[in-house]
Formats: sequence, C-alpha cells, structure tokens
Amino acid sequence: MAEPSNSIHFGIIGCANIARKVARAINLAPNSVLHAIASRSIEKAKQFAIQNGFSDSVKIYGSYTEILDDPFVDVVYIPLPTTLHVEWAVLAAQKKKHLLLEKPTALDVGELDKILEACESNGVQFMDGSMWLHHPRTTKMKEFISDSQLLGQLNFIHSTSTISSSSEFLENDVRVKPDMDSLGALGDLGWYCIGAILWAKDYHIPTSVTALPDIVKNSAGVILSFTASFHYNQEDKTTFATIDCSFLSHTSMDLAISGSNGSLYLHDYIIPFQENSASFEFTLGAKLVELHIGWNVTPEKVEVVNELPQEALMVQELARIVQNIKNSGGHPEAKWPEISRKTQLVLDAVKRSIDLGCKTVCL
Amino acid sequence: MAEPSNSIHFGIIGCANIARKVARAINLAPNSVLHAIASRSIEKAKQFAIQNGFSDSVKIYGSYTEILDDPFVDVVYIPLPTTLHVEWAVLAAQKKKHLLLEKPTALDVGELDKILEACESNGVQFMDGSMWLHHPRTTKMKEFISDSQLLGQLNFIHSTSTISSSSEFLENDVRVKPDMDSLGALGDLGWYCIGAILWAKDYHIPTSVTALPDIVKNSAGVILSFTASFHYNQEDKTTFATIDCSFLSHTSMDLAISGSNGSLYLHDYIIPFQENSASFEFTLGAKLVELHIGWNVTPEKVEVVNELPQEALMVQELARIVQNIKNSGGHPEAKWPEISRKTQLVLDAVKRSIDLGCKTVCL
Repeated sequence: MAEPSNSIHFGIIGCANIARKVARAINLAPNSVLHAIASRSIEKAKQFAIQNGFSDSVKIYGSYTEILDDPFVDVVYIPLPTTLHVEWAVLAAQKKKHLLLEKPTALDVGELDKILEACESNGVQFMDGSMWLHHPRTTKMKEFISDSQLLGQLNFIHSTSTISSSSEFLENDVRVKPDMDSLGALGDLGWYCIGAILWAKDYHIPTSVTALPDIVKNSAGVILSFTASFHYNQEDKTTFATIDCSFLSHTSMDLAISGSNGSLYLHDYIIPFQENSASFEFTLGAKLVELHIGWNVTPEKVEVVNELPQEALMVQELARIVQNIKNSGGHPEAKWPEISRKTQLVLDAVKRSIDLGCKTVCL
Repeated sequence: MAEPSNSIHFGIIGCANIARKVARAINLAPNSVLHAIASRSIEKAKQFAIQNGFSDSVKIYGSYTEILDDPFVDVVYIPLPTTLHVEWAVLAAQKKKHLLLEKPTALDVGELDKILEACESNGVQFMDGSMWLHHPRTTKMKEFISDSQLLGQLNFIHSTSTISSSSEFLENDVRVKPDMDSLGALGDLGWYCIGAILWAKDYHIPTSVTALPDIVKNSAGVILSFTASFHYNQEDKTTFATIDCSFLSHTSMDLAISGSNGSLYLHDYIIPFQENSASFEFTLGAKLVELHIGWNVTPEKVEVVNELPQEALMVQELARIVQNIKNSGGHPEAKWPEISRKTQLVLDAVKRSIDLGCKTVCL
C-alpha cells in the first residue's frame, strides 16, 4: 500500500517487547508510518527490525540521539525503562519531536512536569501509551456512565490489573529492577487501575488515597503486589474505589462500576479478549422480584466492533493531532497530557501512602 | 400432596417480609411442613396467613410463647429484628426447638454465644438463614476454588452486596432502626460479603480487618453504607479481600475470586437471577497471546440447575438434620453454628474497626 504523502513518521527509541506491538500499530494506522528504530547497539536494532519483519525503508540507528536528529521523524515512541524517561523525553521534545511515552510516564509527577514543560515550550504533542482509552468500547462505556438516566451517581468502582509472572520475569524484567522501574507493579499495573478510576470520574482527583495493608515487595524493595482505595467526597456525593494490582496472580483486568441506578462490568478492559470486537455487561434498574426469589433483569451485553485494534487507534489519534499541528497550524491538545499528569499525581499519592505504612493521603 | 409422616414441623415467629419467602420454602421442601405462625397480635398473624395463602391446617398464635409451647413444632424460624434474637432464640432452644435464625444472628458474638450455648445444652440444631450456601452452584464453585489445579492459591476476593432503598425503607425499615437492627447495612448486607470471604477461605479467620473511610450512617448512627478490607497472612500466603455494602446503591451481588491460576466471577451470588438455574464464569490459565493483542482464553460459563430454590434446599437440609436427631438418635451438626459464629466474629471486627475510626483490627 502506498504511503499517503502526509503520513506522520514515527521513530521508536529502544527495542522493548511492547515496541513490537506499537510498531505493528504504526503500520496498521492509516495516517502513520514507521520511519526509524534506534537502539544503543546498531546490531540489536538490526536484529529487532529483522525479527519483526520491518520494511527495508525503516532506518536503523545505533544511538538514541541519531533518531532524534533525523528531521523526517515527527513522533518518537519511547518504551524505555521509566528511569530514563525524563532524560530522553525532554531531549526529544527539545528536538521538536512529538511524544508517545510508555506508561508509567515518569517516576513521579515532578519528573513528568519537566517532560510536559519541555513539550509545551517546544509546541509538541504529548500522549502516554494507555491504549484502552482509544477503544470505541471505552467511549461507549463512558456514555453509560455519564448519562444520569443510566448508571446515575457513581458509588463504587473496583478494578484489577494482575498478571501471573514467570520466575524469569520476577528475576530479570526491568519492571522489578529498582534502577529501571522502581515503581514496579504500581507503575506498570496501577497505571491502568488508577487511570480507570479517573476516567470514570471525569478526571476529578480523589479526595484521599489509602494503600491497604497487602503490599508485597521484592528483596530490592520494588512493589510486586498491592491494593489501594480511593475516596471521592464531592458536594455530598461520595464514590469509593478499590484496586488490586499484582505481578503474582492470575491474569485479570476487571472493571466494575456501580451507580445509583445501574452497574457495568467487564473482565478485559485493558486488553480486550479479542482484537476486532469487545463487550461489556450492564444491569439497569435491577430490583428483586416479589418474594425476593429472583431479579427483574439479567445482565445485558453491549458488543462494540472496532475496525482497528486499540493500539492502532491510539497511534491514529496521535498522528491526527500531529498532522493538524504540522499541516494546519493547529496546537497540541491539552487533554492527553492532562490525563497523564492526573494519573501520575494519584499514582504518586498511592506511593506516598505505601511509604507511610498505609496512612491516608489527602489530595 | 399428602404430608410424609416424618416431615419436620416448622413454626414461624413474627410476620416479617422474609417469612413469606421462607414459608414458601417450607412448603416446597419435601421433608418439612409449615405447622404454625405466631405474631404478637393474633389479628396480624391471621392476616399474614390469609395474604400468603397458608393452608387451613396452619395454626395461628397470638404470642411467641404459645408457638414455643406447641409440642408439634420441631423447628422455629425466627425472622425477628436482631435485637430480639437472643431472648427468643434462647427461649426456643430451652423449649427444645431447633432453630433457623435470620441473619445477622445477633448484635455481637457474645449474644450469639448465649444462643449457641442454649442450643448445645438442649441438643437442638442451629442454622442461620444464609440461603446461598445451600445452592448447588455454591458447591460447584467451591470445587473450583478448592482444586489447586484450578484456581490455585487465592489472592484476591471482591464482593458486593448493595441495594437501592426507597425513602420509605430508609425512614421505617427495622434495618435502619437503632433499637431493632443497630448493625444496619453491616448486619444485613455485610453478613453475605463476610460470609463469602469465609466460605472461600474454608472458614479460616482473617488475620486482620480494616474498615475503609467510606462509612455513611443515618442520623440515629445506624450504618447505611460501608466498605472494608480483610487480610489473610497464613504460612506466607496472603489473601486480600474487599467488600462494598450499601443500602444506597444499585442492586449488586458481585463475587470475584482470583487465584494464582484462575479467576471466578458472578453477579448474583446471594440471590440468583433465576430460581431454577444459576451460573458463574471463570477463566483458567489466562495469558496474553503473542504481541499482547488478545487473550488465549475467554470466560467460560458453568450453569448449575437446581430442582428446588436455594431457600427450600436450606429448609430441606435443616429438616434432614432434625429428622436424623429426632428419629435416628443423631446429634446436632457443628458445621452450621460454626459458620454463623465465625461470620458474626468477623462482623464484630468490622464493627470495631468502624467504631475505632477505621483502625486495623487484628484477629
């Protein structure tokens, strides 16, 4: 397929596993093209390009600076270990590259602010790699949540993000290394659960955050498993949320939201079971029937078909914004960095609560 | 249908709404018969019998003591407000009546112990009114949980019991009156969620219990809504559970259990959507497929058909035990009072944590 002339050119910094998925997404999105890949070793970058069947037209760089100096690169995707984000993301922004930054965006909101300031002062778009936010199912669920005739006032949210890790992962993965991703499961898995709460609550910040006394760390002090609770107290309306995040449990991605008039639930909100369609279930106006021997309703399923996988929709959305900036004098959109910043802010609060021995942290 | 000659005769003390459901269950169970109904007012008892189409053979009593003095009554079902349980349950046991006691069994475990001691010293069976424990689906789920090849080590449990109450309920129901059911939503709804955790954990008592800072009370101090967490720390294996209980939210009865190798979930564990069959869903050995663009499995459904509704199975089980005691020299079974006592014990701990401003209570 001929590449449309105004396609946005992506460069990838680092050969992380997740980069394979995003490289595929860049190829799938109709308005983007994979232009270059960089590793600290040109051999590794070459290997990665061959293994993933990259087209011969993809440039291969043996250093991160080279890809940032390539004037044809519009956007860099950075799936580096979190510790390296601030350095390379700031440099990329200074080189006028738009940013797709893997989550967690930074080790704390102070670091993220340096990145966001660099993006703002250089007029480049920032977006983090939360793919599920771009799925049309997510939009559909939001309609259910936002319509006061449907779910109503949100009372309870429960979300999980757990994966069963191999001993190899627990030994060697960057996400359990204190010098690479010191936030561990909080940064990797907690990002989704915290993001889901913020998403459900229209990105209002919780009143308080409390880590619960179920924290497992490895010998280096990196969080492998934790649970936390989030309390909203706004204008006499309270919402309470709990999350379970763990590298040490069976794969689960549950999201259950219960309001005054309905409930919504699904078990694959982060990565849908299947790539081309996804569903959620809901009950509305549930009551027990006479004598309480059953319910007046049973769960209904909403199926949402997506023509592109959610990661390609993410790339497409970012490329659309960049096209608008590049070709039509548009400005970066504040929505995406705001979502990232709020997620990082609440994540920091969970970290603080954990560090304080599960004390409640007010926000 | 002719009543089998060895059917167990039930008497009902009080005309609570739930007594209508249990009266029907007594009629449905093949080894029990509704023998008598008592109210403090004979008029009220008569009315109740007519409204619910009781057979003319059902005796009508205008006082609780009369029904306890009826030598043909084998079992009394007591759906009185919780405050009255200890008085009438102890008296019933002393009159050698077996007991089906509505939940919560008592205001605290001290009161319940008085009841259980009376049952033991009088050789009568005790059972509380937790119907869902008698559904064959519950047995089937337990097989999934107990088999180490299936769910594996239990890591996370989340359970909800919420109902959307009318303003009439919030004004007048006994469950919001401090002199009737001072435990409010904790006693009524928390009983199920706490019971579900204990059931999943083979009735091991949690290491600690922490109420979470989301407690709503009415002006009389009765709990209308709360959340709590439960921590198990046994032989290096931890299980963490969270529950949401509320009179102020949409009807929900979720149970999600996640182990090292599988997850199980359902949305109607307390009262099944339908009366004659019920289901749950599970995933086992879930992993993300290559490139993390989907899952290797999708949830599977297990459907369990039940010939009798769960409340009739409860009555049938109690009547079976009583038949064995009455006709075959059998002894009361320790299982049921033990389940009740442990539930009440953990419920007390949640109460204590709430009273202490959400401090962790160790057990």
